[in-house]
Amino acid sequence: MKILIVGASGTIGKKVTAYFKGKYELVTAGSKSGDIQLDINLPGSIESFYEKTGAFDALISVTGAGHFGPLGSTTPDDFKKGIDSKLMGQINLVLIGQHYINPKGSFTLTSGILSDDPVVYGANLSAVNGALNSFVMAAAIELQNNVRINVVSPGVVEDSPGYFDAFPGHTPVAMNRVVLGYVKSVLGAGTGQVIKIY
Amino acid sequence: MKILIVGASGTIGKKVTAYFKGKYELVTAGSKSGDIQLDINLPGSIESFYEKTGAFDALISVTGAGHFGPLGSTTPDDFKKGIDSKLMGQINLVLIGQHYINPKGSFTLTSGILSDDPVVYGANLSAVNGALNSFVMAAAIELQNNVRINVVSPGVVEDSPGYFDAFPGHTPVAMNRVVLGYVKSVLGAGTGQVIKIY
Repeated sequence: MKILIVGASGTIGKKVTAYFKGKYELVTAGSKSGDIQLDINLPGSIESFYEKTGAFDALISVTGAGHFGPLGSTTPDDFKKGIDSKLMGQINLVLIGQHYINPKGSFTLTSGILSDDPVVYGANLSAVNGALNSFVMAAAIELQNNVRINVVSPGVVEDSPGYFDAFPGHTPVAMNRVVLGYVKSVLGAGTGQVIKIY
Repeated sequence: MKILIVGASGTIGKKVTAYFKGKYELVTAGSKSGDIQLDINLPGSIESFYEKTGAFDALISVTGAGHFGPLGSTTPDDFKKGIDSKLMGQINLVLIGQHYINPKGSFTLTSGILSDDPVVYGANLSAVNGALNSFVMAAAIELQNNVRINVVSPGVVEDSPGYFDAFPGHTPVAMNRVVLGYVKSVLGAGTGQVIKIY
């Protein structure tokens, strides 16, 4: 099985990569590191990425930035950053990747707890995560050749203590539980699932 | 109470407008009709809209287009249409409008059933609606001066029989029930609510 991991050097990505490494054929990718570099904000860069990887069996996306700041001073341009990156970046990985993925392959995206349990300053990421959760439910009923799609929605993770103050009362999630969400999506049989890890 | 209705001439908008007309001060708006014209895809046009309306008490948005078509042939540009219009158009009505709305005012947006109950060809609208639902939950905890925000999420409406075939097994929703969703948001006291009418 050939697995592509976009965002392989990130907080979650490096733990997910470590889990699959040695067991499967991996291609790692990121904006500045990994086997292949790409800019997920640019559809042309995603197209070029898949031209380099060729056919594959699983795409794991653990990438994408959002805007985090007071709603009162958030501008349309601020909001667009998360839309272009974490939302459209990941969705375009699917829209373009569906033409490269092998039958019975899987897409696994990443959203997050803010879709359901908002925090102050998090409206952009709430919107982005809510969109991703609903997108996978809908895409799952249309993908061809038994290709599956799920999204892992983690809470604030234990490896990101810098965020704890911004998530008052949230329980930091153990990284091994988060990694298992991706394992369930890739090696399990479910599709259209929001795999909540919190 | 001064109520702005964006999309006042649409299928839902005209019924909502009819309900509030005569009872409150109304300003209707649309891309081609109404008291004021605006293009919700353009933040500058939204800013100009609010400069014309001045301070207000309630904004009802019943506007925004999405892409409806096979996932397999959906391009990043296709997907972006719904993101720019129904999603960012409505969110920018809030981001910009928060600087014009009176204390204790309310924003009411429109999403739809596809966030939770997808249909074939509807992945773009599923994503857009999911984003809007999560956005209002998050924006509600940050808006100042007791300003409220809710979203009405209707099922396929009885006045749109052209959509019935695309929503197999869905129960068309009576327009008076849909209108009451907007009434609840504007005249009720709730905030951060997804008012599901289906």
